[in-house]
Amino acid sequence: MPESPIRKLVPYAEQAYKDGKTVYHLNIGQPDIKTPEVALDAVKVHSLDILAYTRSEGSEAYRKKIAEYYHKNNIQVEHDDIIVTTGGSEALLFAFGSIMDSDDEIIIPEPFYANYNGFSTASDIKVVPVISKIEDNFALPAIEEFEKLITPKTKAILICNPGNPTGYLYSKEEIKKLAQIVKKHDLFLIADEVYREFVYDGNEFYSIMQEESIAENAIMIDSVSKRYSMCGARIGYLVSKNKSFIKTALKFAQARLSPPTLAQIASEAALSTPQSYFDGVINDYVSRRNTLISELEKIDGVKVAKPKGAFYCIAELPVKSADNFAKWLLEKFDIDKETVMVAPAAGFYSTPGVGLNQIRIAYVLNENSLIKAVNILKEALKVYKD
Amino acid sequence: MPESPIRKLVPYAEQAYKDGKTVYHLNIGQPDIKTPEVALDAVKVHSLDILAYTRSEGSEAYRKKIAEYYHKNNIQVEHDDIIVTTGGSEALLFAFGSIMDSDDEIIIPEPFYANYNGFSTASDIKVVPVISKIEDNFALPAIEEFEKLITPKTKAILICNPGNPTGYLYSKEEIKKLAQIVKKHDLFLIADEVYREFVYDGNEFYSIMQEESIAENAIMIDSVSKRYSMCGARIGYLVSKNKSFIKTALKFAQARLSPPTLAQIASEAALSTPQSYFDGVINDYVSRRNTLISELEKIDGVKVAKPKGAFYCIAELPVKSADNFAKWLLEKFDIDKETVMVAPAAGFYSTPGVGLNQIRIAYVLNENSLIKAVNILKEALKVYKD
Ligand SMILES: Cc1ncc(COP(=O)(O)O)c(C=O)c1O
Ligand SMILES: Cc1ncc(COP(=O)(O)O)c(C=O)c1O
Repeated sequence: MPESPIRKLVPYAEQAYKDGKTVYHLNIGQPDIKTPEVALDAVKVHSLDILAYTRSEGSEAYRKKIAEYYHKNNIQVEHDDIIVTTGGSEALLFAFGSIMDSDDEIIIPEPFYANYNGFSTASDIKVVPVISKIEDNFALPAIEEFEKLITPKTKAILICNPGNPTGYLYSKEEIKKLAQIVKKHDLFLIADEVYREFVYDGNEFYSIMQEESIAENAIMIDSVSKRYSMCGARIGYLVSKNKSFIKTALKFAQARLSPPTLAQIASEAALSTPQSYFDGVINDYVSRRNTLISELEKIDGVKVAKPKGAFYCIAELPVKSADNFAKWLLEKFDIDKETVMVAPAAGFYSTPGVGLNQIRIAYVLNENSLIKAVNILKEALKVYKD
Repeated sequence: MPESPIRKLVPYAEQAYKDGKTVYHLNIGQPDIKTPEVALDAVKVHSLDILAYTRSEGSEAYRKKIAEYYHKNNIQVEHDDIIVTTGGSEALLFAFGSIMDSDDEIIIPEPFYANYNGFSTASDIKVVPVISKIEDNFALPAIEEFEKLITPKTKAILICNPGNPTGYLYSKEEIKKLAQIVKKHDLFLIADEVYREFVYDGNEFYSIMQEESIAENAIMIDSVSKRYSMCGARIGYLVSKNKSFIKTALKFAQARLSPPTLAQIASEAALSTPQSYFDGVINDYVSRRNTLISELEKIDGVKVAKPKGAFYCIAELPVKSADNFAKWLLEKFDIDKETVMVAPAAGFYSTPGVGLNQIRIAYVLNENSLIKAVNILKEALKVYKD
């Protein structure tokens, strides 16, 4: 497949070719949704003659606009509670580095976003998982389960809401339970809310930043990546009312000088994206999810937790090793030269041996592709031998 | 000063206002040099409809072009020896994280780029300084000075060549000496070569990557920030022939998903910058340096090491505390409402008490401004009392 000068930078393609096969990529969180034009156009009309560093925390004007965005979302933070980061990824890294020393512990409900492991390793801290179960639709484990795990080294609890890879949306009551725990044990509560906008079925999203009792404990991770389908911008935010935390995090930001300037121009413009764009996107994801879940439920032996948010779901398969099955799909199976790539869920657990028969599916493809992809899974499971 | 919608992102301005005073910024490494048009224009004509993640290591096509750039510079590396990073800053962070564990040690000739401290703290490693002296023009300390400092915890030596903040350019012989040490003690040699292009007076730049005997030990840090005056792009490179190092560093790259996409488009285009651009820029810096040094030398009691590269110099002042002097300049002194901001050099030393009477000057302003700025320094020193 010849690379066009721009496309070569963009390996998101819905269908990539492997050994002459077409592969439906259900494994990655790179949506096929168009970026708002207002964002793409902003960089086309830039009038920079020097592409210079910006302030390490992002420009004040941009952060003021971000604060306005939060106000509209019932989150009362101001521009100086915000540090603009190079993606939510960097916000996570700064948060970990600012509140934990070597060997400190962070409790995370698993399955969790696999790169939390990477950032923990980079920060030399220990992830302590608390298991949420597919049988419970991945609801928050009981408070006692958390309390059992808290040690003098525990510094924080991290949740992802709505969840990657589960699609689980925490209720207001669950957030209040977490607030109680972190208050009682004097911990930080980090919430990765990069999928905030992707909430379905009339459910309401409740941010940890709305829980005023924990203003000093709460750290929010945010990102433009999925909200505006502009993952390549690399812009995220670190948000907290805790001044001394922000002061420390700013030191990390200063050491790396500046978040990307062109991407800030695009991301600032993205804040003016019309509501109709989001309505369309949410509609698309809801239909995709409905199609995906109903097709998956038709397959014998497949168990699936219906996601209330984000664009992922975990499915349990009638196989021993989802890892082997995923490899076999790519290497040995096709229907009319088409196959599917899925993410074995074991990578989202840190407890060894858990989730071995689960996969994560990202519904970032159009419905026709999803139907074809799930059909391939179905036929594959009929013939696959563990 | 009202902010234009774009300018507000760009705090580089040569003269910023403080309490109604005009301040000449000699303190920061943000050049006033124009970015090549070919780079700025590339993002204006982009045809992306999704601003997607790129490969974590940067696109293959871009890395192949980077390899060609190196070949032209007598550095024989290939695209798979290169990881595209979010600035040289991230390349440093990945390098530290990939080769050192908590409490490991890295030897760095001081004075050194202040953020090496930040990245070391973030990686929980210890900087062991080896002192280079203004009296010796900041030449490499003797081999014995390094060997005295090597312990079982020493994993690497880090140099900056040409140097920030010294402007020192290491000779081929000095690089060979370092090669000997790292070979003998099985250490990594990291060279921050982000100022490679800024070499004056017909001196020749010798990269650690040209020293074939240490192919497995050598790690190079690079960046487009200064080369093309595009600091805000946030694109750098991590380069090494050591496959197992690159494999580890790639894991850090994968955890943060992707370097910025728009910036990669601009940076790839920047590789086509015509030679005439660089010739002009180098001419500018040489005249600026000559002007700066000759003006500084006219001031009683000022000692200055003539830089052979980069765009910084260290000057020793007839004051006890350059820190107090710098504050006083900003707050208490002006000539016709103009004053100067300099960087106290203590921040570039990790040994306490060293360099207290030194400042770093970045010659990133035009010659007229430099002359005015040094004149302000001169008059200030006449009246300043420690
Ligand atoms: C839960 C979660 N957090 C954070 C990120 C990081 O995204 P980015 O660095 O692009 O903002 C992702 C990306 O997939 C994610 O799924
Ligand atoms: C010596 C040195 N290394 C690395 C950097 C990092 O630059 P960037 O992250 O913009 O590539 C700088 C910036 O001033 C520098 O002076």
